[in-house]
Amino acid sequence: MEIRIGICQLDVTDVKEQNVQKALEMIKKAAEKGAELVVLPEMFNCPYQLNYFKPFAEEIPEGFTYQSLSQAAQENKVYLIGGSIPEKDGNHYYNTSLFFDKNGELIGLHRKIHLFDIDVKGKIAFKESAVLSPGKKITVIETPLAKIGIAICYDIRFPELIRVMALEGAEIICVPAAFNMTTGPLHWETLFRCRAIDNQLFMIAASPARKVTASYVAYGHSLAVDPWGKVINEAGTAEELLIVNLDLTEIQKVRQAIPSWQHRRTDLYQLNYNIALKEEQ
Amino acid sequence: MEIRIGICQLDVTDVKEQNVQKALEMIKKAAEKGAELVVLPEMFNCPYQLNYFKPFAEEIPEGFTYQSLSQAAQENKVYLIGGSIPEKDGNHYYNTSLFFDKNGELIGLHRKIHLFDIDVKGKIAFKESAVLSPGKKITVIETPLAKIGIAICYDIRFPELIRVMALEGAEIICVPAAFNMTTGPLHWETLFRCRAIDNQLFMIAASPARKVTASYVAYGHSLAVDPWGKVINEAGTAEELLIVNLDLTEIQKVRQAIPSWQHRRTDLYQLNYNIALKEEQ
Repeated sequence: MEIRIGICQLDVTDVKEQNVQKALEMIKKAAEKGAELVVLPEMFNCPYQLNYFKPFAEEIPEGFTYQSLSQAAQENKVYLIGGSIPEKDGNHYYNTSLFFDKNGELIGLHRKIHLFDIDVKGKIAFKESAVLSPGKKITVIETPLAKIGIAICYDIRFPELIRVMALEGAEIICVPAAFNMTTGPLHWETLFRCRAIDNQLFMIAASPARKVTASYVAYGHSLAVDPWGKVINEAGTAEELLIVNLDLTEIQKVRQAIPSWQHRRTDLYQLNYNIALKEEQ
Repeated sequence: MEIRIGICQLDVTDVKEQNVQKALEMIKKAAEKGAELVVLPEMFNCPYQLNYFKPFAEEIPEGFTYQSLSQAAQENKVYLIGGSIPEKDGNHYYNTSLFFDKNGELIGLHRKIHLFDIDVKGKIAFKESAVLSPGKKITVIETPLAKIGIAICYDIRFPELIRVMALEGAEIICVPAAFNMTTGPLHWETLFRCRAIDNQLFMIAASPARKVTASYVAYGHSLAVDPWGKVINEAGTAEELLIVNLDLTEIQKVRQAIPSWQHRRTDLYQLNYNIALKEEQ
């Protein structure tokens, strides 16, 4: 079964309504090109900068962005992974991805599990945990298109998480993400390609466009990787809609060719995880 | 602390004594260039071909290759990871790596844990399990140079194994390996670089040289990767001695800059393994 995906590499400004408006336009364009699933970037409605997260945060489902995305999914008849947005829930704030079906119903919600607290001396420092709280569930959603996992940016650095999603049956893992000019060049493609090779599934990365005047300069290079680890298509650094076709039968072909999937030595190591944690935030 | 490593990308023939002789010469050359640790490729004394494994197999410690390597380690005063050789133990055969200290004492022995049984239609098929038995221990050895893990070729495809070795304190993971012309181009460098990024340690790969007339054509491209995922040095495809310096302080620097090491969410997933299994084959 082949499915068509639209990956939206959006330029993000400091005007929320403008960001959402542009996303809606690109979702429409993707649908016109036949996309059945559309993926937006991390923090697509808000500059990736700590002091913006609280003022831009929205409650769910009341928020403007939630309502706009739900309507866009319904109007365009697409499954929509709404990148991520700052979410407010009581006193807590999260980096949250919303997954809508083509009727505009919310079918998944992923709160970034691993918060991005880094300090590369003289290059880049960021501390999400100063403002945000971490999610506590792993997100894999069954849809008529495919079984789809969601992770957000820094989550991709943890092979255990992606393995768990694969063990839970994920066929496509979508990752709204904003790597930067320090980590991007050596880590971005390598991480996505290796997770695809290890787990023999499709990896999708949606980045904001690169804006050199931003406080945090995103790497760009949104991409789709097949289960053999080959980049199917990759964006440049500017705003761009990437359309890719995924042939899901590739998963079984690769798993038969190199059965590393069955060769795991669970007598020597076991990856345990708590399914119950998936049921509640 | 900086240590110097010699990675021997050896051409392998179907004459065992010739293969061992060439390895001894390259070990000597590496020692003369200041290497304190020398790493040989997978099946460096035997063509990587099922029908050679049994006739070339040796018992330990009586075998010619074992004795030759032990003596070479002692004479050249180097730590020596003797790639791998076919080992015979009773009725069982293994793909085995021998680790000698600079007095020629055996300080580690790794039997390939994951056997290479693949069938990429129309490209390459191989079935190690038709002849070999799998190892059942994970190998991390404390030495005065560094804590060193050993994996063999296909073992590298299992992120759990490399993570366990890192959790056990490995600072350098040495992988005698022979990828091929089908898997090499997209998988070789990606896997080694991603394991280094994920675990923030040094990865060393030692491949046989590429010989296009062989039944199994090795990919070559022996390499060393630093904890940031950068290739420090990489061989071409021909026979070659690669000398690299590893600055072990890089491990702590990278782990401080991007503390993914501490950010693992062990409340959501746990990688369990049995230390006892390390004690016996």
